[in-house]
Order: sequence, then C-alpha cells, then structure tokens
Amino acid sequence: MKRALLSVSDKTGIVDFAKELEKNGYEIISTGGTKRTLEASGVQVVGISEVTNFPEILEGRVKTLHPAIHGGLLAKPDQADHRKALEKQAIQPIDLVVVNLYPFKETMQKKDVTEAEAIENIDIGGPAMLRAAAKNHAYVTVVTDPADYDEVLQGIQDEGVELEKRRQLAAKVFRHTAAYDVLVADYLTEEVYPETLTLTYEKKQALRYGENPHQSAAFYETPVHGAPTLAAAEQLHGKALSYNNINDADAALALVSEFSDTKAAVAVKHTNPCGVGVGDTLTAAFAEAYAADSVSIFGGIVALNATVDAETAEALSNIFLEVLIAPAYSHDALAILQQKKNVRLLKVDMNEHRDTSRVVSSVSGGMLVQDEDRKGLADAEVTVATKRGPTAAEWKSLAFAWPVVKHVKSNAIVLAKGERTVGVGAGQMNRVGAAEIAIEQAGTDAEGSVLASDAFFPMGDTVETAVKAGVTAIIQPGGSKRDQKSIDAADEAGIAMVFTGMRHFRHA
Amino acid sequence: MKRALLSVSDKTGIVDFAKELEKNGYEIISTGGTKRTLEASGVQVVGISEVTNFPEILEGRVKTLHPAIHGGLLAKPDQADHRKALEKQAIQPIDLVVVNLYPFKETMQKKDVTEAEAIENIDIGGPAMLRAAAKNHAYVTVVTDPADYDEVLQGIQDEGVELEKRRQLAAKVFRHTAAYDVLVADYLTEEVYPETLTLTYEKKQALRYGENPHQSAAFYETPVHGAPTLAAAEQLHGKALSYNNINDADAALALVSEFSDTKAAVAVKHTNPCGVGVGDTLTAAFAEAYAADSVSIFGGIVALNATVDAETAEALSNIFLEVLIAPAYSHDALAILQQKKNVRLLKVDMNEHRDTSRVVSSVSGGMLVQDEDRKGLADAEVTVATKRGPTAAEWKSLAFAWPVVKHVKSNAIVLAKGERTVGVGAGQMNRVGAAEIAIEQAGTDAEGSVLASDAFFPMGDTVETAVKAGVTAIIQPGGSKRDQKSIDAADEAGIAMVFTGMRHFRHA
Repeated sequence: MKRALLSVSDKTGIVDFAKELEKNGYEIISTGGTKRTLEASGVQVVGISEVTNFPEILEGRVKTLHPAIHGGLLAKPDQADHRKALEKQAIQPIDLVVVNLYPFKETMQKKDVTEAEAIENIDIGGPAMLRAAAKNHAYVTVVTDPADYDEVLQGIQDEGVELEKRRQLAAKVFRHTAAYDVLVADYLTEEVYPETLTLTYEKKQALRYGENPHQSAAFYETPVHGAPTLAAAEQLHGKALSYNNINDADAALALVSEFSDTKAAVAVKHTNPCGVGVGDTLTAAFAEAYAADSVSIFGGIVALNATVDAETAEALSNIFLEVLIAPAYSHDALAILQQKKNVRLLKVDMNEHRDTSRVVSSVSGGMLVQDEDRKGLADAEVTVATKRGPTAAEWKSLAFAWPVVKHVKSNAIVLAKGERTVGVGAGQMNRVGAAEIAIEQAGTDAEGSVLASDAFFPMGDTVETAVKAGVTAIIQPGGSKRDQKSIDAADEAGIAMVFTGMRHFRHA
Repeated sequence: MKRALLSVSDKTGIVDFAKELEKNGYEIISTGGTKRTLEASGVQVVGISEVTNFPEILEGRVKTLHPAIHGGLLAKPDQADHRKALEKQAIQPIDLVVVNLYPFKETMQKKDVTEAEAIENIDIGGPAMLRAAAKNHAYVTVVTDPADYDEVLQGIQDEGVELEKRRQLAAKVFRHTAAYDVLVADYLTEEVYPETLTLTYEKKQALRYGENPHQSAAFYETPVHGAPTLAAAEQLHGKALSYNNINDADAALALVSEFSDTKAAVAVKHTNPCGVGVGDTLTAAFAEAYAADSVSIFGGIVALNATVDAETAEALSNIFLEVLIAPAYSHDALAILQQKKNVRLLKVDMNEHRDTSRVVSSVSGGMLVQDEDRKGLADAEVTVATKRGPTAAEWKSLAFAWPVVKHVKSNAIVLAKGERTVGVGAGQMNRVGAAEIAIEQAGTDAEGSVLASDAFFPMGDTVETAVKAGVTAIIQPGGSKRDQKSIDAADEAGIAMVFTGMRHFRHA
C-alpha cells in the first residue's frame, strides 16, 4: 500500500485531492488541522502520532521531526540495506508528501505583528519534510502547491508520477524553502550588506522580450511591499507593459515623485526626462512639460503627480504616448484616455511610492548594491559661491532644475526657465558636451535660463559656455580643485552660482 | 548542566571550542566525523544515538531528525507545559547548537560532479537543527560559522550569550539556509524565469559609498562562477575599486570582449565608450582609441583585450586613468604602470568573461530580469537596403562600428572611420539628436565616415543629417514603417545602407 503524508496550511483542494488518493489505494497520514479537515469530509486518516508512536508536544512544535517520518521519506526502498533498516525500525516508506508552510509572509504583512507571533510562524517541521522528500525525489513525490494536485493525480492514475516531474517538484520545493528563509532572514537581519545576500522575488509578469526582441525577460516583484510601488500599480487600460515601458515608467515615477508641493508633469524617453514642468494646475504643468520638448515626447512616457482631469486628458490624448502614470484619473479623463487604443494607463499611489530597499544591478560575475539616492535639496547645504546671489526668480528655477538633473543620466546638465526644462543634456562622457547639448536644445530659451549640473565642473569651461549662451544662474555640487576657475568665470559675467555640496550621479 | 550539540562539516577550530565548552561545564553531544575528531583530541562526547536511543540509519541520512533532539531545541524551558512535556519524554533541553552544512557549493564546483553525488550532498538534518535552534533563539544559541566561536565563548564565560547576539546568530542561520537552498534550487531548476526567483550573492567588497557619497553600497559576487568574470578579476595595483569604477569597468569589459579576432582598446566614461580602436598591435589599437576622443578619456577606464606590452604601457601612463583592464601585463608594462599611484590595474581573463546568467536591475517594488544581449553581427541577417552596397572598406568600418553602438546607451549613434570611433552620440531622447552629437564630435572626420545606429530611424531625418555631414555608409536594424524614406534619402545621396534586423537598445 502506498502512503501519502498530508499537512497543509493552505487547505485549497486538499479534500478532493485526498479522496482521489484514497481511491487510488493510498493510506493518508495527517496531523492537526489538515487531519480534522479531511476527517470532517469523510476521509480515512492515520494520525501522525499513530505512525511515530510519539505524541505531538510543545504546542505542535514537534510532531513530524521523527525517524518514523524522515526514515520513511529518506529511504531508498530499492536498496537492501535501507530496506533492512526500515524493517528493523518498523518504518514504512512514504511515497507522497503534500506540505505547505505556515504563512510567514502573510504574518509579516499583518499590521502590528508581534515578534512572538512572527517567530511562532517560522515553520520548522514543514521545511524539514519538504526538503527530505525533495532530496529523495528519486523515490518520493513532493507537492507544495495546490496548483500541482491535478498533474500529480494524473501521474498517479497513469503509471506513477514520472521522475522528470518529481525532479521539477523537488526544484519547486527548494525554490520555496529558499524564498521562505529569505523572508525569515530579512525579518531577523539588521545588516544592510550582510556577507551573504539573498533576494527573493515573485513573478509579476512574463514579458514578451527584454530590452530587445532577442532577449528573454520577466518582471518580478518583491513579496512584501513596504510602500506603494510601480510593481503594485493598477493598470486601467491598454496592452501589457513591455520591458522598456517598465524601465521608463520607473524613471518617470521616480522623478515626478520629487515634486510633492506642486503639480508636476514629466515626460521620459529612454529612461531620461525629455520634458519636465510644474504649474498651479495639472494642465499647466503638462503644457510646460510638452513645450519643453514637443518632439522627443512622441512615443514617450508621461508621469503626473495629481489626479488627471478632463482638460489634461484632452491635451494628453493629442499625442502618442506609450504609458501614462498618475495617482488617479477623473471619470471623464478616464473616458477620454481609454479611447486611445495604445496607451497604457497606470494608477500608482505616489504618497511614498518607492521602496526604501536596496537597488541592485548586475555586473559581470556579480552585482552592485546600493541604497537609493533619496536625498534632495532639503538635505543639502546650499551656499552661494559667487559675488552675486540668485534672485528670487532664479532661486525658484534652480530649486526646480535640481531634482530634474538628479534624474538625468550622467553627465547631466539641465537648463530651465521659470519652472520648466528648456534643455536636457544627458548621458555624456564630458560635462561641457552635456552643457552644449542642453544649450543647443534650448535655442533662444537659453537666454535668461538657469543651469543645473549633477556633478561639479572639472574646469571653468562649462561656466564659460553657459555664460555665452545667456545662462544667469547655476546650481552644482562644487568641490572641484578648480572651483575657483568656475567661480571667477561666473563672477566675471555677473551671474549667480550656488553649491549644494551633494552630487547626483546616476548611470542606470 | 548545559548541553551543546556539535555537528560540523567544517572542522576549523571545533576542538578548541569544544574544550572550552567542557571547561565551562557543557556536556557535548556529537555525531559521525565530528564525534571522532573530538574524541581523538580527548573531548568527552555523548553520541547522538545515546540521546535518541535510536541508531543512525540509511547511511547517516537519519540521525538527528528525532524528538529527543528537536524537542530539546524547540522547547521553552521557562514554560511549565513545555517542561512537563520534556520530563515526560525524558528529553533534556539543548542550549547550544554548532552545525554547518554539507558543502553543497563546493560539490557543485567540482568538475564532473554526478547527480547522485550532488543529491547526496543536500543536507537535511543540518538545516533542520539550525532552523529549529534559530527559531528558538530566545533560549538557544546557534552557531554556523567558526568565525563566531570566540564571541560566543566570550558570552558563555560572561553571563551567557546575550539575546541580541543570539538573534543575530539566528538571522545568520536563516541567511545561510536561504542561500544554501538557492544553490540546490538552481541545480535542480530548469526554468529561467520561475514563479519564485531567489538570487544569492556573497559580499566581495564593502564600498566606501555608492554612485554618490551619500549612498551606501557593496559589491557582491555570485557564489559559483561559470566563467571568468569581473568579480573574479585579480587586482594587481592601486586603491580599491569604487562603485562607479566597477560599473564602468563592467561596461568597458563587455565592449572590449566583442573583439575576439583583433587587438582592441576601449575607453569608457560614465558607462559609455568615449573612444574605441582596433589595430594590428595593441599600441596601434590604443592610439586609435585615444585619438577618437583625447578629452573624455581623462579620468576614464581603459580596457584592452591583449597582453599589455611596454610600449602600450608607456602610452597609457601619459594619461590619468582610473582603471586599466587587460587579460595580462608584461613584466615591463607592469613596472611602468605600477609607478602611477592612482591607476587600478585589473587582470581579467577574457576568453569568455561574461556569466551567461540573468541580468537584473531594480525598479520600484521589484526588478526587471533579462538575459544578456550576447548577439552580434554573426547572428544578424544583414541585408543591403540601398542601390549601392558598401565598399570593402565601408563594410570593415560598419562591422567595427556595430558592436560599439551596441554598447552605447540608447539612443545611440556611432560614427567610425577606418576602425576607430570618431563620434559617439549617447543616451539621447531622440535619434537625430544622437546623430548630431556624434557628428559634432567627429568634426572634419565626419566626412567619409560610416554611421551605426542601435535602433531603426523613425523618419528620414537622421539619414539626411548624416549625408549632410559626409557619412558614406550606414548600418542600422531597419524595420520602421518609414524605412523607405530613409532608403530614398540614402539612395538620393548615393550612400550605402545595410539593415541588420537586430536592435541593440541598452539603457543601463
């Protein structure tokens, strides 16, 4: 007679599965809540204690950690010495194990969970059985996901579950126990950069392809969200997001979230902002962002930090956009935008949208991990470096341009006028080159604009270039050995320059 | 009397540790090889079987999976019902657990490891004890790393190991078991993008900071390297690598590795190539890369794909470089370069330097995962789109420019002449803008150059701009609805244009 051990936290489908096992001649061993559930439905169940001849003790902490169970799971029944050992100890092999674990993740997600409650929800017996059965998958079938019941039953009804399937189920067990222990480790660990760093994610979305059609890809989310995130965004309309959509949306969301006390609109293309504007109304903010670069926005991604109204929706619907991101949409706005077949509408809570977690990126043979750049002007020690300080209007423009340049790929230079960008010099290998791109793009708007630089000027040439273009005020980290050259150039031209003491390199 | 259970695969320091435990009045319980090692050194040991009254069976697969052990590990001795249960079953509490696991990782790294050997090295009893003790860290001290012996002993000799320390040790256990099960899961898993994706890394290097001084960071490496990698590089000279150094080095290494049948030199700044050259000698290749942009290379990173000789070293030592990467350095070259205090010299095997593994990058609330873009011209279906096909010299230049543009951030345009870059338009939000940057940088070298674009032209304007600058041949993926406009513009100017059918977007 075949024997199955069933002990599940998630009772979905367990009764039907057990009944089918019974029909196929299996003896069912079970314990605790699973045993009660099965018996209530008329399934014949042998209690764990009858198998072990040992009581459940310590409030259920010890019930399956017993040789009668683990000998049954780990034996190779086709090996004579193993068979002999089992016989001698009156242990019978177990053929099928169905176990899922105490819901540590769900416990973690509860508000105000106590440490005692969290600790009690660390499953010890379950992972031991799962791991033992998975190790011994040459002989044992192990199931940890109700979604696998049907296929396993099918196998049993045919000629037994095939070895290849048993191996896949074993792999799933180790993926499950690994992820489980990451959550426990995260709960207990205080170090940000421990010697061993293990990260676990759940698949949110299969992707048609990656950055390019010949690359495969998928979108994963963290199992426990600390705050509203892009991964948790609600999609109200449109096709599935692509890899590049998600990447761009992340960049757009990060930038628009910098503006908390004004309406803001951000257009992103290839992960760089191409137009940013703020205003008293969302319509005004978007008009500014659009005017900033009405060419690059085509096929781009727009993020807005306030409820989209009908007027803004009308303006948005006049251009081809891949993705639109906002915290909410008015009923009318949604109706207008949903008429656009190709735009993807995302609703993302922006109160505090970013995880505080580590940011990772692969490099050959490993990965770089850092905490996110969450600092802003409020964290910087801003000093006026030049004889002339900025005017009130210049200060306003500089304070607008600074968070923008933080989100442009390095080397980055942003030119702004009022509270919109007029030139964005992104991703350049030399700084004066970035300035030239921004100035070129600004055209006549360069005259009377302000300039923000993500890092200091290594020489005086960037200031000279800016002055020549008509820039009247500059914000940059300062800290170069040659700062004086830049200061002299600014003073000579009578423009204002302030130092933040804080750099904002961004490469990915 | 206190009781300690010792069962270690790594015997480092175990004898001294056990002797100190004895001195402090501990009874030592042990098993197998650990027991023999301790007894041979005169430590008094109680065998596991004496505790369990149960023999080790199934070739050691079952020895500790017993209520006498797990009851001892999981009981709360200050709770009356737990005490009573232990007394009734004649189980004594265990106060200290020292366990480390079968070396699954080391087994994996062995060449030609059989599946049976791998499976046998999946530890079941060890993780069960570790996890039980770690769950019960309110009462039990658990040690999995010999590096912790001293501090634990210190605690024992004082007033017992403090709760905070026991909690840290418990966290370490779950980090260890999580990482362990990732390796097992990776061994058994065939899916590239499973529902649950758990990744484990080991800290290679603490970093002073991340992309910016106000961000914390660390460099992690994969536990098992499939191929030579940047993480496995040997540093021959210079200060520790910074976050940005590693990021740039990764970009430089990836690009230089594209050139396998010619000597190549790549200069990178802010993760973008600023100069690339190939030649019959490394000196010639570097001279080309330097000539390509002798400004941006300052403070950059140079990667070379052949042994650095003295002549090349002399040329390199004339400029300030942050990092130099090569597969080897001649004795003389090393002597020359080591005189430069600030350059970091990396030796990286380049035969097949990249992991084939997944590339990850964080986004808000999750991460994007894709396989690396490893395709090249050899994988593309190259077709001539224009009336005129490229000349032999143009083909050579196009074939050189294509792998370069693949490694420039999108939108990317590269201008090349002969076999060196003359203009690199990187990271732009619109394509014609990228072309303009490349042309501007090329100056008089634009005349007679070839152009490579990482993605298709959405309109005819890029071709027109290129023609005006004197470009004579173009390579691009093709596939736009408006390809014909570009083809017409090229035909009208009598230049050659080829399509690869393969896009190479790259954003990070």
